[in-house]
Amino acid sequence: MSQENQILVVGSVAYDDVETPFGAVKRVLGGTTLYFSAAASLFAPVRVVSVVGRDFPLDQIRFLEDRGVDFAGLQVTEGETFYWGGRYDYDLNSTETLFTKLGVYESFHPTMPEGYAESPFVFLANIQPDLQREVLQQCRNPRISVMDTMNLWINTQREGVVETMRLVDMVSINESEVRLFAGTSSVVKGARQILDLGPRAVLVKKGEYGCVMITRDDYFVAPAFPVEDVFDPTGAGDSFAGGFMGYLARTGDLTAAGMRRAVIYGSAVASFTVERFSLDRLRDLTREELDRRVGEFRRLVQFEEEVIEAAQRK
Amino acid sequence: MSQENQILVVGSVAYDDVETPFGAVKRVLGGTTLYFSAAASLFAPVRVVSVVGRDFPLDQIRFLEDRGVDFAGLQVTEGETFYWGGRYDYDLNSTETLFTKLGVYESFHPTMPEGYAESPFVFLANIQPDLQREVLQQCRNPRISVMDTMNLWINTQREGVVETMRLVDMVSINESEVRLFAGTSSVVKGARQILDLGPRAVLVKKGEYGCVMITRDDYFVAPAFPVEDVFDPTGAGDSFAGGFMGYLARTGDLTAAGMRRAVIYGSAVASFTVERFSLDRLRDLTREELDRRVGEFRRLVQFEEEVIEAAQRK
Repeated sequence: MSQENQILVVGSVAYDDVETPFGAVKRVLGGTTLYFSAAASLFAPVRVVSVVGRDFPLDQIRFLEDRGVDFAGLQVTEGETFYWGGRYDYDLNSTETLFTKLGVYESFHPTMPEGYAESPFVFLANIQPDLQREVLQQCRNPRISVMDTMNLWINTQREGVVETMRLVDMVSINESEVRLFAGTSSVVKGARQILDLGPRAVLVKKGEYGCVMITRDDYFVAPAFPVEDVFDPTGAGDSFAGGFMGYLARTGDLTAAGMRRAVIYGSAVASFTVERFSLDRLRDLTREELDRRVGEFRRLVQFEEEVIEAAQRK
Repeated sequence: MSQENQILVVGSVAYDDVETPFGAVKRVLGGTTLYFSAAASLFAPVRVVSVVGRDFPLDQIRFLEDRGVDFAGLQVTEGETFYWGGRYDYDLNSTETLFTKLGVYESFHPTMPEGYAESPFVFLANIQPDLQREVLQQCRNPRISVMDTMNLWINTQREGVVETMRLVDMVSINESEVRLFAGTSSVVKGARQILDLGPRAVLVKKGEYGCVMITRDDYFVAPAFPVEDVFDPTGAGDSFAGGFMGYLARTGDLTAAGMRRAVIYGSAVASFTVERFSLDRLRDLTREELDRRVGEFRRLVQFEEEVIEAAQRK
């Protein structure tokens, strides 16, 4: 198989219990790699490195295999699959974690099947920063490597987070995590601290306010698509990253313009993710629907400049 | 004087004490009408209806008169000028009010000098809703009337707020106030509740996340301009409204495209306001600087659509 646009993702596969004001589900598919893969596989083939317990029914992810997700790197070991429970109030920007049962994920050690190391697009989800580097160091000169992280690692393994940031091309991170990492309320300044470590771009995820991409000489704002009700925000960030990486992998266009489009495609995928529970909306999402929404994104922010004097009534 | 593009604004003139992480000032110029006027007068003549006490040195607002702000409607009465003190933490989205001394503003009753009632553009700042209607009912068929409001009135005089909403063309309101008013976390749904009362547009102000304009068939997002540090957010919303109304008054263009441009001009003015304390930045802001920033706004959100297959590498 051609290695030209393969995407490697390393992170969790999980079961989720989710409660929102609109309903509740138990033991549905979740975890960073599944949301990421469901999004990225709309554009390019994906390889997953993760772990589940023997309780995990692999047939539930067959629909992802059918669209080009390779689970050869998914270890199945004795024990239970990572299981997370969370609740969202009407303010869907804050998550209340009800329980976290790490199970086999606690001792997860990524191992890379043959060929995975040649993947040109690498996404390191929010696993321990030392494991992120271990994976990255096995990769043979990827075209683009992107890391995510989380509050836990910034608080407990900050040096590790910094070390990984030094090695990757881009960082995908929540707004509150930028502030925590950089010790400043200014997201712009915080992102610059990260750019100073080496990455060429920082993708700051702002939940219902969308996302911004900050590079040394560019600042791009993608609003969140205005959905009347966010049904379940779980996975929005990971499917954003999946859409972003997927678009880059498919087009190979790493120009500023190409990256802007990738951000919009990521935002468009995320806007579908939150319309239903779990992976439900991504399961049958078509590229046609996605392209249509990208057009709607454009309409959201478009305005024509006009010299005031010319427009002025006589 | 031609009545074609006169803007009438009714609201407060105040002294402010402000503390931010970057410094503190005492008894500086503030209040909704001054921020509004400083912004709107960059585009069109403004008439102010407000009240101050005898302690207020009128020479401090001469710079506004010099650029076309008419203070014939500013009552000067026995007592003290409205005096407000507030503090912003590093999280500049939340304001801690340190004191509010209403002074002569407590018994403010707007009176309209000759000719004011013919103003075609009317902005009702966040005064009591009954007073807003009293002013509006004196106006002779304005082309555009816009109201603002605040939590206090939504909580204590909700029916009055609803009645005023029924009469105006547009509502300018903070995101948290939309949610409070509509009893829903969905800003989109909340704005629709307001549109159902009659207004043709709702301008939802989101602080550091910018603003959205929602109409029956349009949704427009204007991001906040990315300043490294918001020096002092006081007055951002009022100068946004001033820039918005000013642009509409100057161009007379009430099409969807014209309204979108007005939102961007309002956002651009607000982005300057927060760079310094009080009206300091608006004092010497030029139309040239403003036009340049509008161009930068465009660059913030611009992306070119492209059919993916065409961009794909061979």
